Amino acid sequence: MRGRNHKKISTALNQQPCFDSAQQPLADFKVGVDNVIFSVDTTQNRLLVLLVMRQQEPFLNYWSLPGTLVRQGESLEDAAYRIMAEKIRVNNLYLEQLYTFGGPNRDPREEVSSYGVRYLSVSYFALVRFEEAELIADKVTGIAWYPVKQVPQLAFDHNEILTYGHRRLRNKLEYSPVAFEVLPETFTLNDLYQLYTTVLGENFADYSNFRARLLKLGFLCDTGIKVSRGAGRPASLYKFDAQAFAPFKDKPLVFI
Amino acid sequence: MRGRNHKKISTALNQQPCFDSAQQPLADFKVGVDNVIFSVDTTQNRLLVLLVMRQQEPFLNYWSLPGTLVRQGESLEDAAYRIMAEKIRVNNLYLEQLYTFGGPNRDPREEVSSYGVRYLSVSYFALVRFEEAELIADKVTGIAWYPVKQVPQLAFDHNEILTYGHRRLRNKLEYSPVAFEVLPETFTLNDLYQLYTTVLGENFADYSNFRARLLKLGFLCDTGIKVSRGAGRPASLYKFDAQAFAPFKDKPLVFI
Repeated sequence: MRGRNHKKISTALNQQPCFDSAQQPLADFKVGVDNVIFSVDTTQNRLLVLLVMRQQEPFLNYWSLPGTLVRQGESLEDAAYRIMAEKIRVNNLYLEQLYTFGGPNRDPREEVSSYGVRYLSVSYFALVRFEEAELIADKVTGIAWYPVKQVPQLAFDHNEILTYGHRRLRNKLEYSPVAFEVLPETFTLNDLYQLYTTVLGENFADYSNFRARLLKLGFLCDTGIKVSRGAGRPASLYKFDAQAFAPFKDKPLVFI
Repeated sequence: MRGRNHKKISTALNQQPCFDSAQQPLADFKVGVDNVIFSVDTTQNRLLVLLVMRQQEPFLNYWSLPGTLVRQGESLEDAAYRIMAEKIRVNNLYLEQLYTFGGPNRDPREEVSSYGVRYLSVSYFALVRFEEAELIADKVTGIAWYPVKQVPQLAFDHNEILTYGHRRLRNKLEYSPVAFEVLPETFTLNDLYQLYTTVLGENFADYSNFRARLLKLGFLCDTGIKVSRGAGRPASLYKFDAQAFAPFKDKPLVFI
């Protein structure tokens, strides 16, 4: 027990002392996918998540992560892309699996006339560029880019799934060049800093350290163009140089 | 498309042009958990994975990851701990979810008289200390700590799951102090280096850089004891100092 999240096996097995699962028949499942789709409104420095309003029970009229149940012959990933394509139009899009939530009683449908069928959710994570993503409002009573800080009580365990996705996003920002996915093609170092601040919160790093660190990594390319914004002096516009980054790919790398 | 693993949504949706999954009924699933349990034999510098021999069809007599199907009322995690407890005895043990594999046709049982029921696998990852883990051979025809480099063709898609687990292990070694989970309580810096070499392969880093970097991080505590091994000069024994590490917890940190 070295101070981290260990679990004694005896503890784990004693959680349900009167329940001997080995005597139970196998559980039957329906499998859902739920997508945590983030975007960043860089003009307003807000982290957003895509939510849709549910039009059926359970949780009628609650906001929820866009999701669907997996159909016969369909892979988990295809189901995730299917629901994504129904809700937003984007040019490029990268989905990755997040986590699988499958405890008993996570879905109220398990209780009523379901003959014990359980609902498992495989969640997927995506990050899209705000300016490029067009919402599709067909067949929904509500769809919104919701500021993560203002998200209400969601359907099912979707707040928990969102929290998990938010943690993944923070980690990705620290370890990978995912920030350049959401910024416009050219950006100032301050734009980049604001993006990090939006996702990671204030005081994650000092601006001048951040700036020095990023420039030292060597894959930000100065376009030679300067922009004036507000009262400060003109700032250089940078581009992410994927070629210069290539040798670092899959290497340990910390951005902040 | 900035040189990384993006996927055009149009491509994703065109993969099965003649298959309109929205017209299909929902799939029914059984859900399995499969554990990728690693250990390191530090005396022989071998990375090991726990395999069991299957005693039933499909894949009778094939080696496989220890797994089970989830039962009624049982959470995914409880199922993972259940199968773990049936196969090895350890004092402490930490399992984390790895990935969910759920494509159609991943299990041959889907084809024969299963009424279309699919088998999904939620995989879990664990790392245990070799010296402490005692294998339990009850009710199996074979159980083994298999050197990862010599793993044969496994049942189902278990080679793929193992590959995924191996990648997770490598990442964890780079970003987290998981190495101290598998080393004995006290160890030399060379023991630590050998462990990294065993998991990450030769030439992951130069020994003297590695040594300097680890010592600089400040949570290796010199016990003052020296040991002689072979012909070299006596080496200091170190301990991992969890308290000194605490401030770094959940911070970006690269070990190599």
